[in-house]
Amino acid sequence: MKKLEEYVRSIPDFPKEGIIFRDITTVLQDADGFHLAVDEMKNLLEGVDFDVVVGAESRGFIFGAPIAYELRKPLVLVRKAGKLPCDTISREYSLEYGTATLEMHSDSIKKGQKAVIIDDLVATGGTIECTAKLIEDLGGEVAKIICLMELKGLKGRELLKKYDLSSVIAYDGK
Amino acid sequence: MKKLEEYVRSIPDFPKEGIIFRDITTVLQDADGFHLAVDEMKNLLEGVDFDVVVGAESRGFIFGAPIAYELRKPLVLVRKAGKLPCDTISREYSLEYGTATLEMHSDSIKKGQKAVIIDDLVATGGTIECTAKLIEDLGGEVAKIICLMELKGLKGRELLKKYDLSSVIAYDGK
Repeated sequence: MKKLEEYVRSIPDFPKEGIIFRDITTVLQDADGFHLAVDEMKNLLEGVDFDVVVGAESRGFIFGAPIAYELRKPLVLVRKAGKLPCDTISREYSLEYGTATLEMHSDSIKKGQKAVIIDDLVATGGTIECTAKLIEDLGGEVAKIICLMELKGLKGRELLKKYDLSSVIAYDGK
Repeated sequence: MKKLEEYVRSIPDFPKEGIIFRDITTVLQDADGFHLAVDEMKNLLEGVDFDVVVGAESRGFIFGAPIAYELRKPLVLVRKAGKLPCDTISREYSLEYGTATLEMHSDSIKKGQKAVIIDDLVATGGTIECTAKLIEDLGGEVAKIICLMELKGLKGRELLKKYDLSSVIAYDGK
């Protein structure tokens, strides 16, 4: 059986020299690849006690939605500023140049609820840390973070060290 | 059993007077609501012969991903300009003010493949028409369009009349 790593398309020097971009569209575009990716992420949740799945716009939705559906859990969206129509809370996080803002509906997590964050990639960990803090702002608890891929060279795991993080594929580089 | 309509949150006069915004986050945030939404959309695909699921950024991913997973089909992404790392094709479509551009990877649909477009909402139909044309640009065929909700007052169905479109919930207004 083909391994999950073999479905990922690696693009050297994109978006700039020295970076290998890990493209997941080739995973998704293969029925078996996509199935395997969701199943391996879901397996990492075995034995984890949690109430809701949280996915951040937009690639978090791609894996968060099928996992929430399969495990019959609610799916909570974290979106970019201005996309959610009701009362929201927000937080800024740093990008390489400047900052970005993420928002959640104020009623999306109830106090004491245990959340699992699902994303495609841990790079610097900035988006995921921001998502985790939003969950905590609402009185929730981050039970686990599951990512398909991790770029170890960018040290996201260090930034997220207070959380329980698992990834399916870990790359040494950036 | 609660009906799907009852999970949708309707927000009058948002984003402007006279518009009722149909908020799906309350569907997603309920495990049963989300399950029901995906199942009812999936049921509309019964008997449809197709090869790939196509979802447009970003709410198309929320329903496209679990349906692709469940039916073991490839998931093809349509994204906003500049997000896809490999060779792409693109098309512009009109918004209320100005235009937006959508892209697909050139290798994401093969000639003759039958695609199903999945989205949360048919409003004016602009995004979905643009997605359909991208699929056709690559030599694919649109076998079916499935949406959770349809705003009949915005006449998206007219714009999309050459396609086979089904929605789970149809609202009369805008």
